[in-house]
Amino acid sequence: MPLAERQLIARIRRTSNSEHRPRRAVNGIVTGIGDDCSVLRTALGHDVLVTTDFTLEGIHFRRDWHPAESVGHRCVTRGLSDIAAMGGEPVAVFLSLALPGDLPQSWVDGFMRGLIRQAERHGARLAGGDTAESPNGVVADIVVVGDVARGKAILRSGARPGDGIYVSGSLGGSAAAVLQLEAGRKKSVKPREYSRHFFPEPRVELGRILRQKKLASAMIDTSDGLSVDLAHIASESGVGAEVEADAIPLARVGRPSHEVDLELGLHGGEDYELLFTARPNRRIPARIEGVPISRIGCIKRGRKILLVNGEGSRQELLPRGWEHFRK
Amino acid sequence: MPLAERQLIARIRRTSNSEHRPRRAVNGIVTGIGDDCSVLRTALGHDVLVTTDFTLEGIHFRRDWHPAESVGHRCVTRGLSDIAAMGGEPVAVFLSLALPGDLPQSWVDGFMRGLIRQAERHGARLAGGDTAESPNGVVADIVVVGDVARGKAILRSGARPGDGIYVSGSLGGSAAAVLQLEAGRKKSVKPREYSRHFFPEPRVELGRILRQKKLASAMIDTSDGLSVDLAHIASESGVGAEVEADAIPLARVGRPSHEVDLELGLHGGEDYELLFTARPNRRIPARIEGVPISRIGCIKRGRKILLVNGEGSRQELLPRGWEHFRK
Repeated sequence: MPLAERQLIARIRRTSNSEHRPRRAVNGIVTGIGDDCSVLRTALGHDVLVTTDFTLEGIHFRRDWHPAESVGHRCVTRGLSDIAAMGGEPVAVFLSLALPGDLPQSWVDGFMRGLIRQAERHGARLAGGDTAESPNGVVADIVVVGDVARGKAILRSGARPGDGIYVSGSLGGSAAAVLQLEAGRKKSVKPREYSRHFFPEPRVELGRILRQKKLASAMIDTSDGLSVDLAHIASESGVGAEVEADAIPLARVGRPSHEVDLELGLHGGEDYELLFTARPNRRIPARIEGVPISRIGCIKRGRKILLVNGEGSRQELLPRGWEHFRK
Repeated sequence: MPLAERQLIARIRRTSNSEHRPRRAVNGIVTGIGDDCSVLRTALGHDVLVTTDFTLEGIHFRRDWHPAESVGHRCVTRGLSDIAAMGGEPVAVFLSLALPGDLPQSWVDGFMRGLIRQAERHGARLAGGDTAESPNGVVADIVVVGDVARGKAILRSGARPGDGIYVSGSLGGSAAAVLQLEAGRKKSVKPREYSRHFFPEPRVELGRILRQKKLASAMIDTSDGLSVDLAHIASESGVGAEVEADAIPLARVGRPSHEVDLELGLHGGEDYELLFTARPNRRIPARIEGVPISRIGCIKRGRKILLVNGEGSRQELLPRGWEHFRK
């Protein structure tokens, strides 16, 4: 076992059994590293949420673009955001990590710091995982386990014609950074001016409130881009939708800051905002726990998703999505 | 998204929502693919078990040595065996799979067939995962989620001085195949004569019975080899042990079949047998549900693990383990 791997296991073990958390809790992690499985205990009668996400070097990040802490932060944020999109509470994180033999220990330390800090910030603790030597590039697979009151998870399939469509925060900010990086303008992309790309925040608190107050009828996070993620809600719910172009909250990036193009707001991914629908009789505040909420359209009968521009003309909004958009 | 990846997702979705299983069950998978998370429901007041295991091409398997079905079978068996080692019941499997762009679809089909068949054989269903394109070689990360009556998981830390040490089945059979393959004798390694390597069976039923009858005080599966896995029990329990060399059940392999060397029985990994301890007053049958059980030694005070040979001489049994053994 290479040194980096051994130190990583020691670190995970230390974190997962750290003193300020009891080894046997009523809820949460009963036993972490040191057994064949981790034992988790959810509140009595709660459902368990599980989500898994790959983070591959060269596909999801580049070591010359992203600081190690950003890679760890983004890696776990993907999973935390999936828990948020169900209205759940993050409980535990499992990290499977394959590292190239020549990876500097300082990179691994930075990655773990970014990951653990972000997980704990949202109430989840590193509870286990696996390590291996990678023949080529960093491979991380993150599993986030959460819980939610029995039968109360907010699914993608609950939208009905007449529901309003809402999105939190702003869109396109993460994609704007990637476009700059791909254009070779790395120096003009400062992590703090493009924080939505380098250090995105999952909307865990917002998701919880939407569930508790029964405000959302369907929900998803915007990891693939609005056009793709809305298509998922429409497809799972068997409905169509109309989106107003002028209503889409476009991110501001850079310094001096400027608004991103509509195309990025429609198709750029990895913003980790919440996209949800609500019954017409539900009043949705303009801001929930400090997060702006925008109404961007409404659910229709049929299957088509239409984009309505300022002059009232309509065109079909095809799920071009983030991956496709970049090619 | 490459075709193989799209077909894989369609396949996972089909399997995880297949008709003969209700989409909303009282226990098990409430919703599988098609939402941000899978929603699992365990029996009321049960604990949740989670285990993750990497399977990397070139490290855990070679495409020229292992048929695709064997790779899928072994991949999920690693996780099922971890659930067995806690005395739990497998519930759901999550597969994160990164595939090289040029991988034949028939390989993916064989892999998925081996994986799904083996998971379902042990009561677990494919409930989700992630896919990506791999820049180099097949990368699979398998997560198996299980459940167990609250507080009843069998840990590694429960062994006490005086406990007997037992192992199921036989040891060294999987390692014997690897030695032959590494020596370039692929033709003499028929999967059916070395089934413990190509198609190992996790001892799920045995683990469940040991838990239900309260027979085992500590348990682990022999994935890393007896010397390493017993060292884990000893370290987590804060005890030492004595193992009788003559009592170790050595696997028979090949045709005509022959017994493997003691070294393989002591250090060869990936047999996925159960290694457990039992209080002195517990009567352990010689066979449980058809699986032979051998008493191989007993737990002692102290920290050392000693190997006692036929003439009574003792030497320290160091945790050389499988990975180290191969180098």
